Amino acid sequence: MIGLFDRYAPLGAREALVRELENCGVDVVVGRECGGTSDREVVALVGSVSDEARSLLARSPHVARLYRVSGPWVRTARAFRSTRTVVRIGDASIGAGEPFVIAGPCSVESPGQIEECARIVVDAGAQALRGGAHKPRTHPYAFQGLGREGLRLLKRAGDSVGLPVVSEIMDASHARSFVHEGIDCLQIGARNMQNFTLLKAVAPTGLPVLLKRGISGTVEEWLCAAEYLAAHGCERVILCERGIRTYETALRNTLDLAVVPLLRRLTHLPVLVDPSHAVGRRDLVGPASRGAIAVGADGLVLEMHPRPEEARSDGPQALLPSELAACVAEANLLARVLPELEVPAPEGEAGLAARSMPRTDGPVLAG
Amino acid sequence: MIGLFDRYAPLGAREALVRELENCGVDVVVGRECGGTSDREVVALVGSVSDEARSLLARSPHVARLYRVSGPWVRTARAFRSTRTVVRIGDASIGAGEPFVIAGPCSVESPGQIEECARIVVDAGAQALRGGAHKPRTHPYAFQGLGREGLRLLKRAGDSVGLPVVSEIMDASHARSFVHEGIDCLQIGARNMQNFTLLKAVAPTGLPVLLKRGISGTVEEWLCAAEYLAAHGCERVILCERGIRTYETALRNTLDLAVVPLLRRLTHLPVLVDPSHAVGRRDLVGPASRGAIAVGADGLVLEMHPRPEEARSDGPQALLPSELAACVAEANLLARVLPELEVPAPEGEAGLAARSMPRTDGPVLAG
Amino acid sequence: MIGLFDRYAPLGAREALVRELENCGVDVVVGRECGGTSDREVVALVGSVSDEARSLLARSPHVARLYRVSGPWVRTARAFRSTRTVVRIGDASIGAGEPFVIAGPCSVESPGQIEECARIVVDAGAQALRGGAHKPRTHPYAFQGLGREGLRLLKRAGDSVGLPVVSEIMDASHARSFVHEGIDCLQIGARNMQNFTLLKAVAPTGLPVLLKRGISGTVEEWLCAAEYLAAHGCERVILCERGIRTYETALRNTLDLAVVPLLRRLTHLPVLVDPSHAVGRRDLVGPASRGAIAVGADGLVLEMHPRPEEARSDGPQALLPSELAACVAEANLLARVLPELEVPAPEGEAGLAARSMPRTDGPVLAG
Amino acid sequence: MIGLFDRYAPLGAREALVRELENCGVDVVVGRECGGTSDREVVALVGSVSDEARSLLARSPHVARLYRVSGPWVRTARAFRSTRTVVRIGDASIGAGEPFVIAGPCSVESPGQIEECARIVVDAGAQALRGGAHKPRTHPYAFQGLGREGLRLLKRAGDSVGLPVVSEIMDASHARSFVHEGIDCLQIGARNMQNFTLLKAVAPTGLPVLLKRGISGTVEEWLCAAEYLAAHGCERVILCERGIRTYETALRNTLDLAVVPLLRRLTHLPVLVDPSHAVGRRDLVGPASRGAIAVGADGLVLEMHPRPEEARSDGPQALLPSELAACVAEANLLARVLPELEVPAPEGEAGLAARSMPRTDGPVLAG
Repeated sequence: MIGLFDRYAPLGAREALVRELENCGVDVVVGRECGGTSDREVVALVGSVSDEARSLLARSPHVARLYRVSGPWVRTARAFRSTRTVVRIGDASIGAGEPFVIAGPCSVESPGQIEECARIVVDAGAQALRGGAHKPRTHPYAFQGLGREGLRLLKRAGDSVGLPVVSEIMDASHARSFVHEGIDCLQIGARNMQNFTLLKAVAPTGLPVLLKRGISGTVEEWLCAAEYLAAHGCERVILCERGIRTYETALRNTLDLAVVPLLRRLTHLPVLVDPSHAVGRRDLVGPASRGAIAVGADGLVLEMHPRPEEARSDGPQALLPSELAACVAEANLLARVLPELEVPAPEGEAGLAARSMPRTDGPVLAG
Repeated sequence: MIGLFDRYAPLGAREALVRELENCGVDVVVGRECGGTSDREVVALVGSVSDEARSLLARSPHVARLYRVSGPWVRTARAFRSTRTVVRIGDASIGAGEPFVIAGPCSVESPGQIEECARIVVDAGAQALRGGAHKPRTHPYAFQGLGREGLRLLKRAGDSVGLPVVSEIMDASHARSFVHEGIDCLQIGARNMQNFTLLKAVAPTGLPVLLKRGISGTVEEWLCAAEYLAAHGCERVILCERGIRTYETALRNTLDLAVVPLLRRLTHLPVLVDPSHAVGRRDLVGPASRGAIAVGADGLVLEMHPRPEEARSDGPQALLPSELAACVAEANLLARVLPELEVPAPEGEAGLAARSMPRTDGPVLAG
Repeated sequence: MIGLFDRYAPLGAREALVRELENCGVDVVVGRECGGTSDREVVALVGSVSDEARSLLARSPHVARLYRVSGPWVRTARAFRSTRTVVRIGDASIGAGEPFVIAGPCSVESPGQIEECARIVVDAGAQALRGGAHKPRTHPYAFQGLGREGLRLLKRAGDSVGLPVVSEIMDASHARSFVHEGIDCLQIGARNMQNFTLLKAVAPTGLPVLLKRGISGTVEEWLCAAEYLAAHGCERVILCERGIRTYETALRNTLDLAVVPLLRRLTHLPVLVDPSHAVGRRDLVGPASRGAIAVGADGLVLEMHPRPEEARSDGPQALLPSELAACVAEANLLARVLPELEVPAPEGEAGLAARSMPRTDGPVLAG
Repeated sequence: MIGLFDRYAPLGAREALVRELENCGVDVVVGRECGGTSDREVVALVGSVSDEARSLLARSPHVARLYRVSGPWVRTARAFRSTRTVVRIGDASIGAGEPFVIAGPCSVESPGQIEECARIVVDAGAQALRGGAHKPRTHPYAFQGLGREGLRLLKRAGDSVGLPVVSEIMDASHARSFVHEGIDCLQIGARNMQNFTLLKAVAPTGLPVLLKRGISGTVEEWLCAAEYLAAHGCERVILCERGIRTYETALRNTLDLAVVPLLRRLTHLPVLVDPSHAVGRRDLVGPASRGAIAVGADGLVLEMHPRPEEARSDGPQALLPSELAACVAEANLLARVLPELEVPAPEGEAGLAARSMPRTDGPVLAG
């Protein structure tokens, strides 16, 4: 349950309410409702909430509005902020209207390769460079990435073209080296979405986190993973749909595009789509990218390679330079011509007097 | 394996080759390669193909080009025609560039309801009216539809606004009554995609068939079901993606939009998308519809109701009249502004002299 | 909701209650609670049940016990009978303690083949002979079975060794010919579990029906399909688990053995397991059969072939004669040594005075 | 590819062959074929194997037998050892014939609780005590376990009844504290099956590892995870099936029992089954346990609690003390009466002269 303090509620009254709630044995989160013109405080109850606490919140004269959240996530719930979160990486922003494209090779392979990629990526009009240095490989004897040296090469290549860089972190003990090498955004891969140790370790770095959906992650689990990050201090979380595992084997994974507008109802966090891992073959990445922007994604994560047949991993899904440029251009075109997706504001927002408890963010889960 | 006869191959030589192939014990299909300006014959081998037959076809001087097909479907394979199939229903065409929208209520409930729906559907700019008369219901004691009377009401409502009508057929013995009532297009529902008895019964009616993907239908099974229709005389098949069953329960089904561009590589048949059954809730049908057109669907199947809360089935996913109109408008907008999706022609098409066997329609299955 | 009439309730009072309930607009089913020594009537409400009807039933002095059922199935719910249903086919009984084994080839291929199979099956100690005459084949150009001639050969082979015969029916219009040829039990295949037309057509034949679980059938859908049969007059339904479709491709399907004891809590119908289609390879059929009996299955459906490499369909999963005999022997051994599985009786059964509404058959679904 | 050296091959010749193979650029593993009476060396090629290396191995006069392995796992492949691996934990052995039962509460909650559990577990006849100290919880605000203090309590409780203890490790940095506290076996949970960082960290501890199958882990991924452990020095790996995620929601997960006999063909490692997490409800754990032993599992992992309704996590699936004792007794009974499952030895084993390359471990994957 989330309550929005009245804008005239005195500090003392707010603090008193929080103490009372804590005395009921519930955990309380106080946040700044920082969207729009307002600048009010939000008080949210997390974990199992007693009737007593619920009632305290509902009866307080200092709480202007109350929201019931539909799942066990709170800080990441849509009702926790009045506007969608915008995450800055480098000079560009995710969630601010323009599609944000992160592109690059699956793996950093050599200085020459990553520098060539960086130039292609910036020329195509993308906003960030990606490249794997630590690779999670199913097969123990497969190429596992260049490690820290890969991070260094990636950052240098990004700098040379003026792009921020994104790379996957697999090991909690590496957080410091990612920061030290100047990586601009940490990626949590699909296999690690529920690696809670890792989530807790990356949150305090202060870097934005690109959180991929697990290979068979549910929407609830995914938002809970984001909540782990938020609860440990990371508010700059970007969700990334990358296809889920289903019975269908015609493509590498099943791209779940309908989840994008669903997430816009459930959370204030921005959402990207990675069509490359979803479809697993070059010729379908373009159409899937169009679909992603059309359903409301805030951008794309795309794999590319100057010579896919030479790639050390995931070559079949890597876009050629010209295909990457076409993808970015189409994404920008689509975003320009499409009327903005209407996502209804959390119910009851309009009538400020009300103190009902609207079900704000959809029917997924009982509150 | 599909062979394209040389345009100057004499009739006698063509017939002789077919006889020779049949003498090898393989089943042979001869089709007209009717797309574009050419007007040549195609010879295709179906079922298990012996090396002897394969070699006969490959060595014939009258065969200008050879294609290996990637699955057990032949008449529906992309290489079987040089252009995509256009299916006419009423005055409009599916697959001709403009999005084709089939809209209507889940069930025909009463004369007044279906007539009101028909006016809303035509005003929204849709091309056909749908409505269920025989309803496949999981629960034996749920409303099962108005039956033949429902078909009659549907047709009358369609006529009153000048729209062709589409309705689901569940029973082979009903084929005649669907024809008699003037239903313009037969729908095979998801539960019946592999009801081979039904497929064989509807094919000879001469009506176009809207073939929904099974609840957990693979691409291969789906195209094989279309091939059943084609093999029994129905060439006017329209495929319809409607979401598949996966582990994720946040939405009713998982909408598999990436399958749309995949199908454009595997088959010449047009493809629609039904976002209503996929997402199961009204507020996500609009974004999902955008996504469908963006990935290359030839149109949409949409459920609507003037008063969804009164619907006898599937109310939560029914669009309101204004939402339906917005969906159609956005689909048309998208189709206009998007550059046409490039789907590479079957390989080798250009070089007419070649007699290699390109893998024409993608890597799904071994030929 | 199911109510058990008091054994001394006069006929007039029982009929009056049923009328009153029907006047509330609910559909009422009256059954004979025929298990055990009791011989009382059961009254069950089906479809959507109003509070008024619920209350009528709960307050009646003639109703000794009330059960809330956990799903939309009623006639097949465990609370509808006090004992498990025993289905007789030929001289043997399914659900009576001894494992019931139905074995035979995937397809009837020739008189010699099916007669040879019949002898092997009877020698192995199985209770019934199976064989497909109408084959549901994914690929339109694959062998589709011998049709009616196959039924005739199957029956003759069964007669020659004194075994009843089981065969799959795919087409509602064939029901009469199955009866005419003397088929002892009709199989509804996995692809047809929700072919409601077919379910309604086979129910009135009076023959027992072996209802396979759908390829991605949920427990709820499966029991509803059984309820369709029961609602149309067929009480001799046998459920058959045959593996479900999941992401895992290491085996043909994923055998869901835990569903067997779950079904014993939800329904009074007997349950068989078909390990052959589940695992798809001969060497694992034996261990899977052991598992099936151990979790409480009432028997097995096994595919065999004297020379699997010559089988026209599904050869890789067909057992050799000696393997079939070993499977049957192990099933019998297991059934003998294992203590009977304790399945708690529907709650409240013991205390006859109570009129509470225990949740009788598990937590799957809200009543 | 795996080659078995001739027992009379001189050391120098063996070393020379390995050097030659390494010069071809392949990675070579040399193992001791320690099963049975023989004591010969095995040479295995890992990663991508060139034709040159393959041919070197095949033509060597010192290699008595050659096996093609069916997947990318080598050290864990069945052909790598002539007998199944037996893993000792405490005084008992997994894989030696007797069912090995690991039982205990989901979480260590207090000194009193875990000591009470330990007594119940030893009285029931189980061989090891389990209890979670670090809990992977989907919800960030749920109870996360007692941490290191929990490990200490667990070990003390195990000692007090003479049982070895098993606990889940989630964090690579904890490996040392698990060793220090005397934990006898490390569990890798389902969410961490592909946490390669963790796998690499636990392998060098020298402790046996209980490797649970991932929530949607394929057989290939699972064996590759085991191979990661083996490649980093841990040969005492125990696999544990615990149900997979599928479309079916009637039970918590879908227990994949057929995977047990499949694994016996693919690997020499022992396999346990955890029915508690698979079915998620107490009343089905017993039948599922029977099934597990019947299909050939080497034992069980069972959750129990003296008062399940008070459990801090997973209470609904915890067995009562008497139920636990019954489970263990039934497992022992079954193991005694069932004829040993016949798992055919890797093909060609018998004929020592042959140098063909039999496909030893099943059709899952191309070699």
